[in-house]
Formats: sequence, C-alpha cells, structure tokens
Amino acid sequence: MNNAFRYDIRVRYEETDAMGMVYYGNYARYLEVVRAEMIRAEGLSYALMEEQGVLMPVLRMNITYRGIAVYDDLIQAKAIILGEIGKTITYKTELIVKDQLINESEVELIFLDRSHRRPVACPSAFVAALEKYCVL
Amino acid sequence: MNNAFRYDIRVRYEETDAMGMVYYGNYARYLEVVRAEMIRAEGLSYALMEEQGVLMPVLRMNITYRGIAVYDDLIQAKAIILGEIGKTITYKTELIVKDQLINESEVELIFLDRSHRRPVACPSAFVAALEKYCVL
Amino acid sequence: MNNAFRYDIRVRYEETDAMGMVYYGNYARYLEVVRAEMIRAEGLSYALMEEQGVLMPVLRMNITYRGIAVYDDLIQAKAIILGEIGKTITYKTELIVKDQLINESEVELIFLDRSHRRPVACPSAFVAALEKYCVL
Amino acid sequence: MNNAFRYDIRVRYEETDAMGMVYYGNYARYLEVVRAEMIRAEGLSYALMEEQGVLMPVLRMNITYRGIAVYDDLIQAKAIILGEIGKTITYKTELIVKDQLINESEVELIFLDRSHRRPVACPSAFVAALEKYCVL
Repeated sequence: MNNAFRYDIRVRYEETDAMGMVYYGNYARYLEVVRAEMIRAEGLSYALMEEQGVLMPVLRMNITYRGIAVYDDLIQAKAIILGEIGKTITYKTELIVKDQLINESEVELIFLDRSHRRPVACPSAFVAALEKYCVL
Repeated sequence: MNNAFRYDIRVRYEETDAMGMVYYGNYARYLEVVRAEMIRAEGLSYALMEEQGVLMPVLRMNITYRGIAVYDDLIQAKAIILGEIGKTITYKTELIVKDQLINESEVELIFLDRSHRRPVACPSAFVAALEKYCVL
Repeated sequence: MNNAFRYDIRVRYEETDAMGMVYYGNYARYLEVVRAEMIRAEGLSYALMEEQGVLMPVLRMNITYRGIAVYDDLIQAKAIILGEIGKTITYKTELIVKDQLINESEVELIFLDRSHRRPVACPSAFVAALEKYCVL
Repeated sequence: MNNAFRYDIRVRYEETDAMGMVYYGNYARYLEVVRAEMIRAEGLSYALMEEQGVLMPVLRMNITYRGIAVYDDLIQAKAIILGEIGKTITYKTELIVKDQLINESEVELIFLDRSHRRPVACPSAFVAALEKYCVL
C-alpha cells in the first residue's frame, strides 16, 4: 500500500462504549471520514459531488476487527482503492493504533444520480483525482 | 404531571460510553423518541408532518443530569407540553430509572415551512392531538 | 429461516443522514439490539453475561445493503445463529422494510473473560437458551 | 471572549440527519471535542485525568440553536470557562459557520473520584493549565 492515502483520526469519548473501547459500529464513521479526506486532499470534496447531483450510498461493508482503540487514541488510517473506478468504487482501509493493525475493511459504494436514483459513472474529475490511489 | 405521556426506552450498548453509562449527548435521542411516540399515540406521526411540508428543528435544549443510566436499563419517560402550541412547542420531559429521576429537560422546537424555511403555525390536526398533554 | 428470532425496530430521526435514509454505519446498532432482544426473549440478558464476567466484542461484520430505510420505518429483523456456539458466535440477520429485504449481514463475536481478556466458551446457560436459533 | 480557546471541527456525514443538517443532539459531541482539545493545547489530556482516577460527568447542558451546519462545514469553536474551577467547571462555547453564530451553549461538569464516585476538586495541574481561559 505504497500509494495509500494516510489520515489520522482522534477517538472521541462519544465513540467509546461501556467496554471502554470504540463501539464496533462507529468504525463506519472513521471510514467515511477517510474517504472524504482522500477526496479533499486532491482538491475536490464529496460535498461538491452532491452539488453535482451524485450520491454515494454504500453497497457493502466488510470489517475485520483485529484489535481495539480506546478514548483519545490517534488512529492512523491507510486507504487505497481496489480495482477501477466505474459505477462503483471499493475502498480498502487499514486502521493502526500504536503500530498495531486494529481494523481492516472493504467498503463498496455506488454512484447514483440524485434525481432518478439510478447508477451513473463516477464524474470524470473525481476519477482523475482518485486514480493515484487505485491498486489493480 | 398527571396528563403526562409515558413511554419506556431500553438503553442500547451503543449509547453507553467508557464511563460505563449513557453518553450525555445521547439523551437528545431519547427525547426525540418520546416526542415521536407522543404524536404516534394520538394517531398521527412526525413523518406525516414532514409529508405535509412542515419541519421541526430544535431552538433550545436545557438538560439537567441528576443520575445515570447504564446498559440495558429501562428508562421510563414522562413528557408534557409547556404552555400553548403556536409557532413553537416546548416539551418538558423527566426520565426515571428504577424509581430515580435521572434527567430533566426542556426542549423547544419551531415549526418551519419546508420550502421557504419560514416559521408557520403547528398544523391544526397536531394541535388538536397534542393539547391533552399541555400544561399552562 | 423458520426458527429465526423476529424483532421490530423503529427508525429514529437521529439514525438518518442527509441522504434522507438510515446512515450505513447505524445498522450495526440495529444488529446489536436484535442480538440483545434474542437473548432477552429466552429469559437471559447480555447485561447478565457481563455481570458473570464475560464480554462479547465483535470480530467480524459483513453487511450487504440491498435497499434503504427512512425515518419512522418499522424494520422487521429476522436473525439466526450460524453453526455452533463455541468460543465465538455468528449471527446472520435480515432486515425487511415493507416486505423488501434491505439489509443482510453476518456478525461474529467472541466470548472474552473480562479480567484476563482471554477467549472463553460461551456460558452454558446461554448456549442452552440460544441453540434453538442455530442453523447448521 | 479574547482569551477564548479556538478549534475547528469538520462536519461528518454521520452527524447530519434527514433535514440535511447536523442533528441537534450531535452538538454535544462537538462540545466534548472542544473541551478535550482545550486541555490538550495546554499539554495535558482528559485521558490523563482519567488515569489519575478523576471522571467528569456532565451536570447540566444548555444549548441555544441560532443557525444550522451542514455536511462538510468547518465549524469554528470559541470556548471559555465561566467563573472559577472548583468541584465543577462550566464551559461556554460559541460555534460559528461562515461568520454566523449557529450555536451557543453552557455545559457544567463535575469532578468525581472514580472509585467512590464522590465530588473532588479539579486536580491542581489542570486548574493551572486551564485558568487562562477563565472569565470571572
């Protein structure tokens, strides 16, 4: 994952649960933040995509939990895009805390036309911006 | 609060935090559920209000935390409406766990026309349905 | 899934996002509620398991999103347990809205001794209570 | 608020709701982040306070909603401490989006000994670190 996008996220108190660690469902938020910041790092934004009438609901999420994160941990994320960017896009993300891999995931999203809710191709400006993160 | 609306809510694991109790911000969700179920108990729904083009954003929330709730607690809510229902509505809610008052709140919401985002009067069917819970 | 556990969950406003539907990460909460209510339906509770010193962190979550749920929808959940209950347990859950399957998932959890954080077998009372939901 | 602590927070998709704006209850998370970053800016951390056996549950939260924030907005927070830091601490926070004040709040927290859950004075290192933000 040499060409991975890297981003750090601080664990908030709200994201922990009574086991004293991050609630398993809250990793979806971190993965969303990483996707948003990957686009922003290339000068675009997901908000801009919505303004252009394209939504990106999630089709599939597979998470393997290999360790835990606790309050105030600084989570280091590394994310790449698997395969090509077409009518869907698949992110593979690793989350690391104190040099330990705690979370591996794949999330596939689809590009939808907002008005008709039909699949569309990813806008070309976004393909161009993100292809540096693709791994075939 | 003789005419209070009563509703029970079970604490979910996700709602707890690393202190082992419900996160302070998550009480806003319970208050929302109580408001929604109060309307539903009278045969209407907030979803129906939205379909009629009326939104209800919150103007003000005051919460006093008098105790805690932990995972799996059954929270008993008692809610009334303070004053009249006009362009705004104010709910007063008490949350009780094992006969102990743990949370007191006032939440004021405004009725907004969805298209122009301007204040409107509460739809009359909703006023009629809810006035039994009003305390002057 | 003839022997599935069935439970209904109402979508809260807080669980929706700006696409007007339930946020993809929030399905993890519903799956947790279904697991908790399955145990409660058999006269036990996850809180009781924690009191006995056993925690159940999640090892793996795979979700396929086949449709959407919106505010106030009543989600009908059907859940079974895949295989045997040993040091881990795997739930398969289907979520249905208005007769349409919107969400399929598998979630595997591990039983951990709270003090040493080491894997342990599921307490026998819980195995006995849940085995009626097992599909081999 | 010349001596206010300032911190920027990006709105996540998860924090929005079906009205297309930040859910009213989620502001509590932002206020928590601002409190945590204020301490961190002075070289300490809330995690450190917990390690020293002091918890900080919330006693009271008063929020006035004056505007909205939408997905991807950069919220500028300004926070001060009202009065002295004793057995409780009260933060006053303003949240600004695009030069508009959208949210004003007061949150009072209490310092509790973790083992006995009794009120204690704020640890002196924290008083010393935070008193620059106090407004009498």
